[in-house]
Order: sequence, then structure tokens, then C-alpha cells
Amino acid sequence: MTVGDILRTKSSRIVTIRMNETVDTAAKLLRRENVGALVVKDVCRTEGNVVVGMFSERDVASAIADHGPAGSALKVSALISVQKLVSCNAQDTIEHVRQLMDEHHIRHVPVLEGHTLIGVISMRDLNTVAVASRPAAEPSAYMN
Amino acid sequence: MTVGDILRTKSSRIVTIRMNETVDTAAKLLRRENVGALVVKDVCRTEGNVVVGMFSERDVASAIADHGPAGSALKVSALISVQKLVSCNAQDTIEHVRQLMDEHHIRHVPVLEGHTLIGVISMRDLNTVAVASRPAAEPSAYMN
Repeated sequence: MTVGDILRTKSSRIVTIRMNETVDTAAKLLRRENVGALVVKDVCRTEGNVVVGMFSERDVASAIADHGPAGSALKVSALISVQKLVSCNAQDTIEHVRQLMDEHHIRHVPVLEGHTLIGVISMRDLNTVAVASRPAAEPSAYMN
Repeated sequence: MTVGDILRTKSSRIVTIRMNETVDTAAKLLRRENVGALVVKDVCRTEGNVVVGMFSERDVASAIADHGPAGSALKVSALISVQKLVSCNAQDTIEHVRQLMDEHHIRHVPVLEGHTLIGVISMRDLNTVAVASRPAAEPSAYMN
């Protein structure tokens, strides 16, 4: 199974945030959209579609851990490391994505087609696939 | 494979927080211990080992989303729903835990032996197991 197979079963909605927006805005977006991470786009480039990183619930928690109440007013640009973008493409296997997540200790990987963002794959998506692909006869045996 | 099999391969350290501690303390613990969620214990009970819930990076983000900077001073007790404890035991299969996570939209499940907390299983643990159980010949085929 490939990343593309998973994207076809998901909502195509991608939630993004800009580098000059705040942790508070990020937290509100994460909650409102019920996602674990936002795709961060570069505010400086005219093309507007350049993915520079991901901003996750973990990043919000780290901002508060490091800066206390003032953390919520910090800009995303002050907190994300733009060097570390880990991405995949639609042809990659889910095994490859699992390995990326394990290796880089991340839960969300943006899916790029060339330089264009076409989706995000989360660890939750991979878990849902694993649950769905479980043999039909098994579930009742494990019910408590 | 069972939950017990995974616990045997993990550090036995369990990171906990009490109901009367703050979001700020939770955020610092999450960061320092490099975990995604803390086990919440009841501060009122004399036995001290009663697990009442989990407090995750998501809960920190939600506190900031809902309360802004003031969110970091809120107590854990004001934010977690104690009715919703989802747990498993060491004999449960990882498929069962995957299903619990999918169904309840959670990434961390405390492992109880009777009423005693013996560990926490995370979605990351399940991903690591899936990566480790991948056939040895495959990885090179997926390397970019």
C-alpha cells in the first residue's frame, strides 16, 4: 500500500499556518480542525506554496515549557527548525513512511508532488489502515 | 504480539502528574521526559496510585487554544475528563490497542494490572514494532 492509497481515502483538506503567525493561532487551528499538526508555509515567498515544516501539538507544548505564558505569543518562525523538513511522495510505501516517523521521531509527514503539497500522512492514518486491514474474524476475540 | 511483549522492550519509567499541578508543569515534564503524554494520578486518594486519565501534548495545545496565555496556569484537574479513562492490560494484543486508539482518537493507553499502573503504550511504540517486524530484505528497496 502506498501513501497515495491513503490520501485517496482521506479528506483532501490540508491545514496550514504561516511563519509569521503565533503559537496561539496555531493552537486554535489545531483544536478547531482536530488535527495534530499544521503545515507551515513560508510567508516571504511569492509562490506561497513552499512547505517549510510542520508545527505540531508538541511544538505548542514545548513553547509553553520553555517560555511559560509568553510562549503563546511567539511566532511560529521563532520555533520551527526549517532545516529539518521530512517529506514523502504519493508513490512511497506506508512502510517507508513508518520508518521515517520512527527515525525522525515525528507523527506527521507532508506529501509532496515535486514542490507542491498534496497532503499530510499522520501516524494515526497508518494506525487506521492497520485496524482496517485486520482480518474480519478477529475483532470479537479481543473484545473485553 | 501482546502489550506485555512491548512493555518488556521499553524503559519501565512512567511519567506521572497530579491533578493539582498546572499545564505549565505538564508541558515542562512532557519536554524534559520526551514523551507525548503523562499519566494523571488522583491527588486526593491516600493510595496515590489511582490512574484517573492521561494528559497529552494535545491537552496543552487545547488549554492555550481555549484560554490563551492564562492556559498555562490552569490545573490539570480543570482540563481532563476523568470519566474517559481508556486502558488496557498486559495480555491484550497490539491489534486490540490499535483499535482502542483508533476508536477513541488517542495516542497513549495506560496499561493496568488490576488497579496498578504498569506502563503506557503509545502509538509510536506500535509504529516502532511495525518497523522492526518488517522483513529484513525490504528496506533498501524503499530508500530514496
